[in-house]
Order: sequence, then structure tokens, then C-alpha cells
Amino acid sequence: MTAAERAEPWPADVSSRVAGWFARCAAETSCRVQRVPLTELRNWSFDAGTGNLRHDSGRFFSVEGLLVRTSYGAVPHWHQPVIRQPEIGILGMLVKVAGGVPYCLVQAKAEPGNSNTLQLSPTVQATRSNYMRVHRGAGTRYLEYFTRPGAGEVLVDVLQSEQGSWFLGKRNRNMVVRVGADVPAGGRHQWIALAELRRLLRLDGLVNMDTRTVLACLPAGFFPGSAPAPAGTTVTGTTVTGTTVTGTTMAEALRRSAAGTGPARHDDVAVLSWFTTAKSRHELSATRVPLRGLPGWHQHADGIERPDGRFFSVIGVDVRVDGREVLGWQQPLLHPRGPGVAAFLLRRIAGVAHILVHARFQAGLLDAMEMGPTVQFTPQSHPAGPPPFADEVLTAPPERVLYDTVLAEEGGRFYRSDNRYLVVEASDDVPADEPEGFCWVTVAQLTALLRHGYYLNVEARSLLACLHSLF
Amino acid sequence: MTAAERAEPWPADVSSRVAGWFARCAAETSCRVQRVPLTELRNWSFDAGTGNLRHDSGRFFSVEGLLVRTSYGAVPHWHQPVIRQPEIGILGMLVKVAGGVPYCLVQAKAEPGNSNTLQLSPTVQATRSNYMRVHRGAGTRYLEYFTRPGAGEVLVDVLQSEQGSWFLGKRNRNMVVRVGADVPAGGRHQWIALAELRRLLRLDGLVNMDTRTVLACLPAGFFPGSAPAPAGTTVTGTTVTGTTVTGTTMAEALRRSAAGTGPARHDDVAVLSWFTTAKSRHELSATRVPLRGLPGWHQHADGIERPDGRFFSVIGVDVRVDGREVLGWQQPLLHPRGPGVAAFLLRRIAGVAHILVHARFQAGLLDAMEMGPTVQFTPQSHPAGPPPFADEVLTAPPERVLYDTVLAEEGGRFYRSDNRYLVVEASDDVPADEPEGFCWVTVAQLTALLRHGYYLNVEARSLLACLHSLF
Repeated sequence: MTAAERAEPWPADVSSRVAGWFARCAAETSCRVQRVPLTELRNWSFDAGTGNLRHDSGRFFSVEGLLVRTSYGAVPHWHQPVIRQPEIGILGMLVKVAGGVPYCLVQAKAEPGNSNTLQLSPTVQATRSNYMRVHRGAGTRYLEYFTRPGAGEVLVDVLQSEQGSWFLGKRNRNMVVRVGADVPAGGRHQWIALAELRRLLRLDGLVNMDTRTVLACLPAGFFPGSAPAPAGTTVTGTTVTGTTVTGTTMAEALRRSAAGTGPARHDDVAVLSWFTTAKSRHELSATRVPLRGLPGWHQHADGIERPDGRFFSVIGVDVRVDGREVLGWQQPLLHPRGPGVAAFLLRRIAGVAHILVHARFQAGLLDAMEMGPTVQFTPQSHPAGPPPFADEVLTAPPERVLYDTVLAEEGGRFYRSDNRYLVVEASDDVPADEPEGFCWVTVAQLTALLRHGYYLNVEARSLLACLHSLF
Repeated sequence: MTAAERAEPWPADVSSRVAGWFARCAAETSCRVQRVPLTELRNWSFDAGTGNLRHDSGRFFSVEGLLVRTSYGAVPHWHQPVIRQPEIGILGMLVKVAGGVPYCLVQAKAEPGNSNTLQLSPTVQATRSNYMRVHRGAGTRYLEYFTRPGAGEVLVDVLQSEQGSWFLGKRNRNMVVRVGADVPAGGRHQWIALAELRRLLRLDGLVNMDTRTVLACLPAGFFPGSAPAPAGTTVTGTTVTGTTVTGTTMAEALRRSAAGTGPARHDDVAVLSWFTTAKSRHELSATRVPLRGLPGWHQHADGIERPDGRFFSVIGVDVRVDGREVLGWQQPLLHPRGPGVAAFLLRRIAGVAHILVHARFQAGLLDAMEMGPTVQFTPQSHPAGPPPFADEVLTAPPERVLYDTVLAEEGGRFYRSDNRYLVVEASDDVPADEPEGFCWVTVAQLTALLRHGYYLNVEARSLLACLHSLF
């Protein structure tokens, strides 16, 4: 299926202007991705000493080995390849308010790893190497709004982590900058109402990970301008299922939770203390080791993988794409076993929607632990049985499934990395008293924490963005 | 000079009850510290492979090698020994309010590295190895208030960094727990009014680093109960200099700054964006390498040091102390070239006191950068000339010096590590527009950031605690 086919049908309440623009972009886009042996990747080579896979410029990223030791979980130590990208990139969204309605300047951007090649990305999505022009491509459009002080009003500017199981200490700068009405769209860039963009989050594989994390960080004060979806609206179509908010009660409970007007089960100090306790309970050390001879992993012409095929492999690809800054390049990609599952359990407590977050250790996170979804796992790779609440989420009857959409992770680093994102209303089987490592929090509490880095992992941030499509 | 001699004279307005208790503790304390070659340290040995210096239990901490590469500053890469202590310890202060007056439960604690052996520490100061009883010593008194949910009201619970130039990724759990009036002091523990404890911060080498960082994290809401020092109070004595707040204007400006009632030069989003910009401007990578054969450092019987004697050495000591959980032990200590200087420049802006903080890269910090003092350096080790504002701080006339006290860093890891802490009112030579990497912020802004980890480095936290002795 091509990107153009995949993009239909759009929800009926999304403007034809936006749908038409995206269809034109998709029609103009050709993207071809072919496997290449890692040993033959142009401009990439294995370091003579460590066997680490690096770009010849020394920039972009490298694939290295990691030794993890931890007192948490069933596996006390393991080796794995990891992507190391020490430089900080920018994920920047321009926003404006016109006629009282907030708009985002999105970009139709092709990434080689995406199943659905063309996706909606933030205005600017650039690694430092990228925008410093290491690859000698064209300049990054709109970049100046994020690098030049005073070019707009900064609403969000925070470093956030990315996939802690695959990246070592990766963080990107999430920025939202408000500009006046005179900044033109054009070409692959389009102004789209924030409310429309939120509704598009209900489509499989359309809104990319970078847009999701930036949207999650948008401050609460910017929300009131966006028209809430009418209560009980059902969006249907071949790619959309289970997106009905069951009655007004949960929608109202979500609005209260986001506005911070209702009581939270735990006050802010208690939430922070719960998280500090969880961080302190176990130790996790991640040590960089040579990729060469990494125990438990085999390297051959097709890539680097485990004999049992679990977790992921590292592969090489040759990319040819039209409409991106550079027309052709080669690179390694991490190809996860998948798809994964990431889900929030919700519950109305005293009329306020609460989210059950899980304090998750992940080896590549800067401080080892962040708050993640209630359930986050990859069924094909999970070592033991399903994690807590997996059954609750995966066997919920349709009326409790508020959101169920397959979305892609970063297509510039991962190949076919899809997660099924779910928001599910908890049944009475889920205890009000949280088991160790879990905490019921409000939307407003998570939004406040997102002013700071390293509290919510990228999957939880995606889910928080998705949640905003429900009310 | 013994600890007992050193503790006199106390400020006239500190109760004789507290002064008498501390004098008795000091008289009962004997502490003997003798140098021992690293190779002969009991229970410590050099790893056969890496040459890293470790405790035989594998706990406590190790001394390892570090290779630092950075695009920041004049030196693009260097090697150094570093203390690695992955486990999270507790720095816990019990507080209570009696008769409307807040009190802290402090401990008179001897540490081997202190010039002034006995200092005022928080109620509990324990590494995880310590309180898990790795050394088979006595249990840690009051520990249960910090580890058992519901034993008190948690006011502060946050992970904070420690010396980023000497520790690799070290963080401790800073906790403040409020209890009822019925928790008894006794022995080495004493209830002391928060206002008294603040005044004792004006004495050289009395309030230890752990107490300072915990006090810095105390929430603003807990302050009103503490009686402010009368405006213009001068504390004099052989060990106290320059602590007069010059007139009521600065004291009032500080109160407004702490209460957050006056306008801040930059709003909170702008401060966060300034910090994110500073973090993103440069890269810093710190890689663990073997201590054996560390380039630029020599290992011999007396310890590990540089041929030019700069920065610090690693030495071994034999400790015998009365009144601590274990009576005798041996350990390595980091012996810095010193003393260092750490200073805040203050300015009244629109009637509100502002602090000029400096975004500082330090190799061992978890996210490479935190906000530090305006000036932080060790004159004997500084590679180039003095850093920005060093002259402004060190040559200020007495009427602009609001605070000037020598305080010790962590005496359990550092030998004779003293810093001269200064708070200085800026002259008109200091521009209102900050140079790159500096930002004027209010006390309330820093206090709010301290609810979260890794914003203020430990020297800035010490200074913030000291600042509270001024108003």
C-alpha cells in the first residue's frame, strides 16, 4: 500500500484542504529502501579496535555494544547493541493562533524505516549533524525560529529522552515556538488546526513520533483555544477502531483531569516521592563495550542479531527518496521484533480521570528510570509471561477501549517499528491501591512534569498526545 | 585546633542549649586519621584487569579512570580518576513545628576528611551499603522515617547530584520528612530551630554539605514559620566575617525574591529555555577507562596524582573514630588542591534580589550540565586565568560582601576539601544583560527547580542554603 492509499479515509471532520495537501505530497513522494550488508554501507565502517559501526564523519550516530547489570527484573545482566547519538537534535513545532484557533505547522516527511513512508512530522526535525550540514544537503527550512532568540515566543523548550531500550542516553530538544500569522506554509509544510492534528492521531501510522512527543509537551494554557471534539463522536473507517469515548462522563473526567480542576489521588509531592522511591529501589549500570564479539549476538552479512531472533536486529539500508534534503544515502537501522504494545489504563477517581503510570527501568535512559505506560512490551520478545495488566488491556471489551491505533516509532533510526497504542478504561479487577512501581496520576500532573526532562518516556508521551484526541 | 575549640564562639543569638550539646559531643569525640598506601588499604584492592580501586565487597564506591571529550572550554579532552558510586544514599532531615517554630533534627557527625572533624549533618546520612549493613556496624538511627511509607509527612524527596568533577553520575536522595512533636532527640542527635541552624551556616566548617543541600531543597511553604533575622544584625567573632546584610533594602529584596512576590527578570519558561539552549550548545562525553596506566597521572605508594600536582590526588587513610557506627576502617579519599571558591553575585532588579547563575558543564554530571554558582573555581588548579566575575567577587569591598564563610565538602569522600563560599552584591561593572551561559534568576525560581533533580549543582545548593542565613 502506498502512502497516498494509506492516507484515506481521513476523519470526516478534518478539512479537505489538509487531506488534499497530504494526498498531493504522498503522490509526489517516491521512496525506495533496499537492504545492504552492513559491511558495504557507503560512508559507514566498523572501527578497527572496537568493531563499533560509525559514520566516517564521526557524526550522526554509532552502533556500539552495551553491558547492562541490574538488580531489577528477572535477568541480572545482558549484552546488547545500542545506538549512541550524543548530539542533541531539535524537534521543533511552530504554532500560531488565528481567529482564536491554534494551528501547528506540520511537515509531510518521508523516513526510510516507516511502514507508512510519509508521515506528519513537526515543522523542524533535525539532528545537529543534519542542521550543521554535515551531509551537505539543503538547509533546514524554518530552523531559524528555533535557533535565533527572539524569532518567536518560546512555549516549550525541554530535553526529552527517546527509546531507552535501543538508544544510549539519547535526548532531543522538544520545542514549541509561537509565531505571528505571517509565517507562510508551502511545499511540504502546512498549517493545520491543533484540533485537526489531534483527530488525525486516531489514524494508523500518520502522525509521527516526533510530532507526538512535541504535542505531549504543549503547555496546558495553550489548550483552551482548541475546540473539543463533540462528546460521543465516533470516527469510523477501515483504519480506525474503538475511538468512541463512552458517554460524556469519561470525556468530562478527562477534561477535569487535564485542567487540574478536580482532586488528584496523590498530591504532587507524593507523586515525586513515589518516583524517587522507585528510582532508589534498584540499581542499574550500563557500560559501553565493544560491538565486536558481543556475547549472545551474531554478526553476518545480513546484520547483527541473536540466534533466537528475539528483541531486534541491526540492518543496513540504501535509501532513495524524493522530497527530502538529500536524495540518496545509506545507513544502519535497528529492526525491532514487533509490533509492541503500549497502553494506558484510565480510571475515574472522584470524577477525575487518572492514568496508571509505571516506573520503568530502561538501560539507555539517562537516569535509568522514567514513567512509562501502564503496559509496555513486545509480545514476540517478552522473556517471561505477559507483564502486569497486559490481559486487562488486551482482552478489554470494545466499550472500554477508548483508543486503539498503530503508530510508528522514529523512522530515521528504526525499521518497521510499530506499536499498538491503547487507552483502556480499567475494569473493577484493577485495584485502586497500586502495586509496587505503579501510580495513579492526573493528566495535569503529567503535563506539569513535562516542563522538565526525563520524567515520561517517549511511549508515555505518545500516549498522552493520543489521549488529547479523546476530549 | 580540635572540634571543640573550633566550635566557639557561637553567634550570640544561638541558644546555649545547642552550643552546650555540640561542645559535649566534640569533647567526647576523638578522631584519628593516618595516611596508608593505597596498596595496603584493608578490604580494598586494585582490580586485576582494569586497575580500578574497589572495596572487596563490591559495594560502597570505586575509583576508576575517566576519559572526557568536549567541545566546551579550552581543553578538548583529558583523563582523570573519578569516584564511581552507583548506589543511591539517603540524606534525610526530620523536621517538626513546635510552638509555631520549625525545628530540624541534626546530628553531630565526624567524617575523616573534614578539617573540622565534627559537623552538623542531617538526621540520617547513609549510603545504601551503609544502611543495608554491609559493614556490619550498628543500625542507622531514625532511618525508618525515610524508608517506611507513612512514618511522617514527606516534604522533599528528590535525587540531587554531587561534585561533578570528582564523582561519576553520583546522586543522593535528599529527603525532608515532617514528624510530630514526640520524636525524641538524644546522644548525637539534637532538635535545633531552623532559624538557628541557618545562623550557624555563618560559621566556618560547622554545617556539613549534606545538611546544606537538604536545607536548600526545603519548600518555600515551610519557611514562614522561621523568624527572620533582625535587619542589620551583625554577627562577629573570630571565625565570622562579612555577614552583615547592608541595610534593609537587600534583605527586603531577598525576602521578595524568596517569596516570589516580585517580578522576575525572566519568566520560568525563559529560564528553562535558557538552560536547554546552554545544554544543547556543546557536547560532552565521559567514558569509563581503566585506572591502570591512566595518561597524565602517576600511581605510587603515596597515592595517585599528576606530576604537576594540579587538581587532586587519591590517597588512602586509616580512620579511628569514636561515636560513629564503626570504630575503625580504611578507605581511599580524594584530596583536592584547594581551597576552592564558590560565589553568587546578587543584584536588586526592580526591588527583587536576583542571582546570577552559570550553566556549568562538569564531566561527571548525569546530564553533563547543571546551574552552578556565578564563580566556581580552584585558584591553584585553574588552567588559564581566573574565570569571568572572579575579580568582581574576590576584590569586592566589604560592604558588598554579604556572606563569606569557609565550608567543607563531603568529608566521607574528600580529604580537606574546603571551599570559600561568598555572596556578593554586584557592582555596576556587571552588565544587566548576561553574557552567554549566565542568567539572572530569583530565589523562588531556584527553589521551584529544586523540586526536581539535576538543575542546581551541589555548590549552588550550598550557596542557596547560605543565602537563607541573610534574611
